[in-house]
Amino acid sequence: MKTKVGIIGATGYTGVELLRILLHHPEVEVTAVTSQKYAGLPIDQVFPSLMKHLPLECEELAIGPISKKADFIFTAVPHKTAMEMVPSFYRQGKKVVDLSADFRFKDAGVYERWYQKHTSADLLPESVYGLPELHRERIRHAKIVGNPGCYPTGALIGFIPLMKQGLISLENIVIDSKSGVSGAGRDVVLESLFCEVNEGVKAYKIFAHRHTPEIDQELSQMVQREVRVTFVPHLIPMDRGILSTLYVRLLKKMKTDELLHIFKEAYQKEPFIRVYPKGKLPSTKDVRGSNFCDIGVMVSEPDDRAVIITAIDNLVKGASGEAVQNMNIMLGYPETLGLDGLPLSP
Amino acid sequence: MKTKVGIIGATGYTGVELLRILLHHPEVEVTAVTSQKYAGLPIDQVFPSLMKHLPLECEELAIGPISKKADFIFTAVPHKTAMEMVPSFYRQGKKVVDLSADFRFKDAGVYERWYQKHTSADLLPESVYGLPELHRERIRHAKIVGNPGCYPTGALIGFIPLMKQGLISLENIVIDSKSGVSGAGRDVVLESLFCEVNEGVKAYKIFAHRHTPEIDQELSQMVQREVRVTFVPHLIPMDRGILSTLYVRLLKKMKTDELLHIFKEAYQKEPFIRVYPKGKLPSTKDVRGSNFCDIGVMVSEPDDRAVIITAIDNLVKGASGEAVQNMNIMLGYPETLGLDGLPLSP
Amino acid sequence: MKTKVGIIGATGYTGVELLRILLHHPEVEVTAVTSQKYAGLPIDQVFPSLMKHLPLECEELAIGPISKKADFIFTAVPHKTAMEMVPSFYRQGKKVVDLSADFRFKDAGVYERWYQKHTSADLLPESVYGLPELHRERIRHAKIVGNPGCYPTGALIGFIPLMKQGLISLENIVIDSKSGVSGAGRDVVLESLFCEVNEGVKAYKIFAHRHTPEIDQELSQMVQREVRVTFVPHLIPMDRGILSTLYVRLLKKMKTDELLHIFKEAYQKEPFIRVYPKGKLPSTKDVRGSNFCDIGVMVSEPDDRAVIITAIDNLVKGASGEAVQNMNIMLGYPETLGLDGLPLSP
Amino acid sequence: MKTKVGIIGATGYTGVELLRILLHHPEVEVTAVTSQKYAGLPIDQVFPSLMKHLPLECEELAIGPISKKADFIFTAVPHKTAMEMVPSFYRQGKKVVDLSADFRFKDAGVYERWYQKHTSADLLPESVYGLPELHRERIRHAKIVGNPGCYPTGALIGFIPLMKQGLISLENIVIDSKSGVSGAGRDVVLESLFCEVNEGVKAYKIFAHRHTPEIDQELSQMVQREVRVTFVPHLIPMDRGILSTLYVRLLKKMKTDELLHIFKEAYQKEPFIRVYPKGKLPSTKDVRGSNFCDIGVMVSEPDDRAVIITAIDNLVKGASGEAVQNMNIMLGYPETLGLDGLPLSP
Repeated sequence: MKTKVGIIGATGYTGVELLRILLHHPEVEVTAVTSQKYAGLPIDQVFPSLMKHLPLECEELAIGPISKKADFIFTAVPHKTAMEMVPSFYRQGKKVVDLSADFRFKDAGVYERWYQKHTSADLLPESVYGLPELHRERIRHAKIVGNPGCYPTGALIGFIPLMKQGLISLENIVIDSKSGVSGAGRDVVLESLFCEVNEGVKAYKIFAHRHTPEIDQELSQMVQREVRVTFVPHLIPMDRGILSTLYVRLLKKMKTDELLHIFKEAYQKEPFIRVYPKGKLPSTKDVRGSNFCDIGVMVSEPDDRAVIITAIDNLVKGASGEAVQNMNIMLGYPETLGLDGLPLSP
Repeated sequence: MKTKVGIIGATGYTGVELLRILLHHPEVEVTAVTSQKYAGLPIDQVFPSLMKHLPLECEELAIGPISKKADFIFTAVPHKTAMEMVPSFYRQGKKVVDLSADFRFKDAGVYERWYQKHTSADLLPESVYGLPELHRERIRHAKIVGNPGCYPTGALIGFIPLMKQGLISLENIVIDSKSGVSGAGRDVVLESLFCEVNEGVKAYKIFAHRHTPEIDQELSQMVQREVRVTFVPHLIPMDRGILSTLYVRLLKKMKTDELLHIFKEAYQKEPFIRVYPKGKLPSTKDVRGSNFCDIGVMVSEPDDRAVIITAIDNLVKGASGEAVQNMNIMLGYPETLGLDGLPLSP
Repeated sequence: MKTKVGIIGATGYTGVELLRILLHHPEVEVTAVTSQKYAGLPIDQVFPSLMKHLPLECEELAIGPISKKADFIFTAVPHKTAMEMVPSFYRQGKKVVDLSADFRFKDAGVYERWYQKHTSADLLPESVYGLPELHRERIRHAKIVGNPGCYPTGALIGFIPLMKQGLISLENIVIDSKSGVSGAGRDVVLESLFCEVNEGVKAYKIFAHRHTPEIDQELSQMVQREVRVTFVPHLIPMDRGILSTLYVRLLKKMKTDELLHIFKEAYQKEPFIRVYPKGKLPSTKDVRGSNFCDIGVMVSEPDDRAVIITAIDNLVKGASGEAVQNMNIMLGYPETLGLDGLPLSP
Repeated sequence: MKTKVGIIGATGYTGVELLRILLHHPEVEVTAVTSQKYAGLPIDQVFPSLMKHLPLECEELAIGPISKKADFIFTAVPHKTAMEMVPSFYRQGKKVVDLSADFRFKDAGVYERWYQKHTSADLLPESVYGLPELHRERIRHAKIVGNPGCYPTGALIGFIPLMKQGLISLENIVIDSKSGVSGAGRDVVLESLFCEVNEGVKAYKIFAHRHTPEIDQELSQMVQREVRVTFVPHLIPMDRGILSTLYVRLLKKMKTDELLHIFKEAYQKEPFIRVYPKGKLPSTKDVRGSNFCDIGVMVSEPDDRAVIITAIDNLVKGASGEAVQNMNIMLGYPETLGLDGLPLSP
């Protein structure tokens, strides 16, 4: 029997992307979608792309009725809103993947410095940071998964092999990320208007982006030392995709081939990680619409500098695809179920 | 047992799109891909989007070896090249879907006026024009299918209900189409450079586009009278999609609702046609990456004018998706097999 | 001495474009800019593109103070708002170019059918429709100019020579226009978000766009008969530009060369109209940022159909550039003053 | 009397941009344009954007005839080609701004490591690196100016105040640059096709881009020590613009305000440099089509890291605009002549 799934906040970009993926998941049936803004409207009037495939109506969120309809919950709502509802689903015995920031942090204090007061801090020990390449075993047993931010996903996957083997200096780590506009969500704000974004590129929230502490938390945990990165996100005129350029200093002499070999070994069994051959570099275009994270690596031997490039689709591996991957793990399904679509290119 | 499929000309945009689709087709195995330009190279070095999914090498075209490897052939090569090889596959007993123009015309004379001398005119009676919504039954028994052009697909689907019921004047039909740049293929020409195309829109080949006689042929056949349309294609700065705006005059008074009803009835059983409710108009964005053709209709009652809008993804319903749909029909598979992916939006 | 100019509504896209142009106009000084939303803010904080060039602060609109500071007024505000203020400036003896729809119509009844009640209908006889290629002499003596809509500008320039010489059938005229997103203005609405618009094309307001009656009015006036066109606007993923494809039937046999000759003769002395040689078609990219309207023409001799293509930058020739052209005429300046910038291409 | 100017290689993107700028330069007349590819064709058939404004025909390069027609020469040809012709013009007594890399290096050995054999190394001492903000006085007296690369222009302007005052560590300098596609020129190559570039972002030539030694040369010269930067360029789906994100470590405690103050002081008199107020960051969109370099600065006090962002239009300040600025200096004209156009935004 298929698992009944409810999506809370189905009419943002991560919501519709969850639907796109789940509607082809062989073991899942979407039985409820909620939307504050569009309650009462058929979901395919909000998103014509879903026509003929999902005859559901958006409903207002009500824990009880949703809990009756669904056994697994995705919360695709803004932070703060999430922590107001996740505990209720949890107490109803539902498993939850939360796509907001509310259940990503181990330390409520960190959350409160970057966001606001945490009203469900007691559940933080229950929740697992949902990066399967890092925490697969713990996700398997989790009731609540805090789905990683889009930037942290791309960045962390580029660091795992480096950190686990102690290959790089922890000082002066620079992460320069370039994101498509869907990363800003579907909020109707001046900064997201076509004519404000198109044909331009800019940095934003330098030293101040809320994904920074998430990256720091996970890197620090990997090496059991406090790590602080320099992270600057940029906005690029395209719909989807995040390219992260990681600048690090190697602690020992190494050739590009050797570093590539380490990455290939580390990710050999990962279904969604693709390490590029020497001399090839990933483009976000080649992962668009898929759950892949593509990686390229280059070493500058004279000065022991290395650059690692990761490319993801921010709405898939950076959000809804990873959320489904986490669901698959939590429910004991094969990890790639529903996620085997190839990138749309061009 | 899976059908073994060969793709001749796998490294253009329709070729890679065939691969994207067929790699998820449960009844098909791609066993050979050819490429003049990249022979000897792994296909995933040409298209990194395919990495981890298709460990095939591009080979030079040789009818014998390919015929041994594959039972069903897609020819995704330029016109003229196609008619030099399709007869050989045909004689080997292979079924073929040809994505070029070479097997689309009933009358070799028309082909020769718009293209060049036809060297396999004897096979034209064997081939069927591959628009399933129009010729499904004949496709079922065809050995050779001439897969429709991208513009004709979008335009014809907007005309079928009108023509079959004799609703419109055959004079003064105007088709104004807007296409994404992938329609121009992967040829390396100045006109397709990013900086020549981006942030601009232009018409091209007014009264002279080679898809015109294709549209005329099919419309004329529907009404058993010669029809000549005015067709103007335009180039739009986006990767995929064709929006066709059809301008017609109704022969009797009719409301938008009534015309919509006719379209809904006509396409009720078509798995890939979606007729929009009154007041809603399709965007190519909502069909991107899918085999859908979305339709919107509007009537101006005072002057009996109607506008029909169709939206397709030129690489899917306008090329490779339709080709797979034709294959499904020819091989007796369910028509939607491998084609049930939802549009990628945004 | 320079003419002192005030811009009412300076912080929309037509407002900032007026500033871009006027700041290089040798006979003009911008002395006041108003903005409801940004009152009190330096204009270059709203538009960093103006930094170092315009040390003005946005002020709230107040007729008295503005009238003291400025002798010539551009009103770049929404319709309805315009007709509430233009009469006041008029009574203060100011010349006004209004970029809204409020002073474009001769017949208040037409305005009221398409917009709302007109509260300054008494001033309509005073105002002139500001298409210099059509009404230059009357503009010269006007106190109020109703600056044409962006779509009508492009369309009408393609019709003037045809209409004046009675070359085409008045039935079945089709205008298919494709516009960049800046045409929708700087309003913060879902439909203008980058991810809603990018990588898609769609029609909107079929038979219902408010620029239709404007086109009808001017065409009807040219031929002294009522003309009703079929006009369908489309939204294209680019910042600027309108391409209009005009479909007409010629009343007598004619070759492309002959029709081109008529256009060249008609527009020989027009500084901003460029008629393309046979076989060349205009792209909006080649007029971007300039006040040009480029024209291409093609005849289908067998069936007496002709297609005329016009390309403009909707923010320049379609709005602010034309407004400055009108100001130049009204003030007796050379018509090209401040408008001689070449298109930005690529 | 106007200076007669010849443009060698007028039909690339920097060539047409030189024309766009020079056609409005009040002290200059363009008297000759050469093009290998389009010799014999009117330049406005190659670039319709120039129609009505430049009735010149492309001619083949021939030093003698060009030297008779022109007194000042821009060479906008590929490296290697440039060094074959610049010496001839120099010997004819012409002043030259060369937009290739051939006259940018002091040390022919560096050039030869990154490019190829230098056949006019004897002229290198005569040539000046044409970054006015750095070498204005030497440019004033130069006969040959090596116009800087697009990336070095944006990067160096962000470093000058830091280097001159010894504010930053020379280790671990990271430059992450994002460029529009016009930076790749008008060469007809697969990588520049619309569908290969659009909706994607990628890094290229990591540690290997030829602009690296140019940056190193100038930085080293500023501090009289060898500096080696880590420079990674990225390709962004837009026509124009380079955003450079500079990552540095400050040698002493400093607030954002203090660092901004240093930039504002340093660039107070520069007509084309605009330093943004605290909290504001530049976008390439706000410099498009102009000769501005916009700068934003942010300090992370806890760890003494700073990020400097510079935005330029790669075809203007990064190429043709800077070339005209150099010409103005060399000819004793006001530096902003012909360059006072405001950015085109949106």
